[in-house]
Amino acid sequence: MPEPFAFRLTATDGAARTGEMATPHGIVRTPAFMPVGTQAAIKGVHHDDVRAAGADIMLANTYHLMLRPSAERVAALGGLHTFMRWPHPILTDSGGFQVMSLAALRKVEEEGVTFRSHLDGAMIELTPERAIEVQILLGSDIAMQLDECVRLPAERSEIERAMNLSLRWAERCKRPFEKAAIGQALFGIVQGGDDQNLREASARALAAIGFDGYALGGLAVGETQEVMLKVVAETAPMLPADKPRYLMGVGTPADLLEAIARGIDMFDCVLPTRNGRHGLAFTRNGAINIKNARHAEDPRPLDAESRCPAARDFSRAYLHHLFRAGEALGGTLLSIVNLYYYQDLMAGARTAIAAGRFADYLALTREQWAAKGDRRGRDHEC
Amino acid sequence: MPEPFAFRLTATDGAARTGEMATPHGIVRTPAFMPVGTQAAIKGVHHDDVRAAGADIMLANTYHLMLRPSAERVAALGGLHTFMRWPHPILTDSGGFQVMSLAALRKVEEEGVTFRSHLDGAMIELTPERAIEVQILLGSDIAMQLDECVRLPAERSEIERAMNLSLRWAERCKRPFEKAAIGQALFGIVQGGDDQNLREASARALAAIGFDGYALGGLAVGETQEVMLKVVAETAPMLPADKPRYLMGVGTPADLLEAIARGIDMFDCVLPTRNGRHGLAFTRNGAINIKNARHAEDPRPLDAESRCPAARDFSRAYLHHLFRAGEALGGTLLSIVNLYYYQDLMAGARTAIAAGRFADYLALTREQWAAKGDRRGRDHEC
Repeated sequence: MPEPFAFRLTATDGAARTGEMATPHGIVRTPAFMPVGTQAAIKGVHHDDVRAAGADIMLANTYHLMLRPSAERVAALGGLHTFMRWPHPILTDSGGFQVMSLAALRKVEEEGVTFRSHLDGAMIELTPERAIEVQILLGSDIAMQLDECVRLPAERSEIERAMNLSLRWAERCKRPFEKAAIGQALFGIVQGGDDQNLREASARALAAIGFDGYALGGLAVGETQEVMLKVVAETAPMLPADKPRYLMGVGTPADLLEAIARGIDMFDCVLPTRNGRHGLAFTRNGAINIKNARHAEDPRPLDAESRCPAARDFSRAYLHHLFRAGEALGGTLLSIVNLYYYQDLMAGARTAIAAGRFADYLALTREQWAAKGDRRGRDHEC
Repeated sequence: MPEPFAFRLTATDGAARTGEMATPHGIVRTPAFMPVGTQAAIKGVHHDDVRAAGADIMLANTYHLMLRPSAERVAALGGLHTFMRWPHPILTDSGGFQVMSLAALRKVEEEGVTFRSHLDGAMIELTPERAIEVQILLGSDIAMQLDECVRLPAERSEIERAMNLSLRWAERCKRPFEKAAIGQALFGIVQGGDDQNLREASARALAAIGFDGYALGGLAVGETQEVMLKVVAETAPMLPADKPRYLMGVGTPADLLEAIARGIDMFDCVLPTRNGRHGLAFTRNGAINIKNARHAEDPRPLDAESRCPAARDFSRAYLHHLFRAGEALGGTLLSIVNLYYYQDLMAGARTAIAAGRFADYLALTREQWAAKGDRRGRDHEC
């Protein structure tokens, strides 16, 4: 019988928090960044490198896995941890977000969402109960409620409708989860778009139902960073202080630190790997587009002082060559560089918060972000 | 001043030989298999994994590198070893084979070959002297003469013309090489197609010129395995016994052991990585097409007893999923599995020859090959 889920705050610094989540597959230090293993694999990167980068937890996408290889097959093969040989914590989303962004002919009704699979055209129904069943079959450490996410900007009435539907789905997720889950955690998802009254109503109603953690959904879906951070700043304080807070699908290094400053504990984003595949490296010296011709004869590594071998051992000229030559190794190496960068950013935040110096840490690194200004990839994996 | 190239036979067993080549960047144990780093990278595989698999030496393609990033740029960046961060031995081909197979509008004349770059359409001339200049700029440990390779079947007159041209080019390669190379080795290439008289003439003429090693070119270019092995068996004895013998662009595991039995010391082939990317794994239990539906629910690893972590740690079901889902990690893992398999095959051959038991080793592994029957990839990297 695995240890049940537990969250413990170890320090706060203003609104910023640091702590530990205990899960059946190990400890997750927060603030935590979760690399996205969409189809039970981080694109182009070996699990061992993901782990070596410092990831305590990985995210996997329910939508993709329920379609292929199917939750039932993963369960028959021992669950997601055994299937993919990642013995550490895993969070699964509910599948709702990808239904909205990937599937054709989707129909959202009270009962759930019906959609046509983008793989074989089959009509599939995803209800709150099925989303929980699938995630229990996958055996993730943290499951997410099914919700409806609305792209911004949107009419208030549409945001409100989706928010209220998500609340009713939250209740419907909790019941079957409580009956069947062993040691797993279930997170509710706050919706309400950029309307603070709706966000507050959603947060308070979810807290009344009671979840192991609370996510902010429906952000990084088209709004500005300013709007996103305003929603985060105003919504986080309405959530139970003793539970983890997860900002879904976010974001750039700047987004992460700013959200931590406003009380967020967890993040996931495809940005480090997607940008890595496209030739953009995050380093302490700023973002580097390695495909740029100015790197073609540069013998320097991306960062000679980095903890990451790929950032230290290969010249910019060689990495540039790999991208120009279409060698997949280039995307792999830059993805690894970025995963290390994100994990080091989180480790730095944890240390700073514990020392009561998060404001200094934020100020110290802010200059780098200003130079980067790259917000591509602030969306979810599709 | 690096140690000059040297070859030392340590044991023979029938026609099979085992020994060591000393190069400026380290020892190469023979029989040796050279993974192909076409563009200064093994496709989809990190150098560290190539090395861990057991590779003493890597091959890089002069044709590709002279076009991108250019030999001059590689030289400015410290040579190929420094550029790609592979501090171990490297063999470069002369570029001739890819000119024949990749470039449009090629024109072979006495002076050399003129071709249109497949990258930018520029007209480029590759003479024997330039092929040597480029390889000295790249700084490989072993350079190859420029030759003309004829696809089989072909008219005897055409094979003879190309063989004689290759001989004249061999002489023209040796002169500038002797002036400029420091510690590097230069190999001549025996041509002559499937005509044994021509092969003998080529071998004897090359030996009279005198090279550090001798390659058999113009094989694995359309002929049957039977024809190839006949040429190998009849040509190898005509080459100086105290120099390494290299069968270019070969081959399957069966090809390799059969050629070792006939006196070959070195091989290169894209087959382990190309087949790996396409879902075909070589294991001690035979070849496995991981995309086959029968693996979809198989929890067994490819080979629980393998020295290769990828063969041991991941289930066939997971590897199958990665290929079905189009995750690049699948191709990477199977490429690694195959590189280990090839290196283990060579290590086994070396041990068997040293023990005077190569016939037993060959008999023991032959059964596996019969089941495989896969000869895709017995061609060179294009």
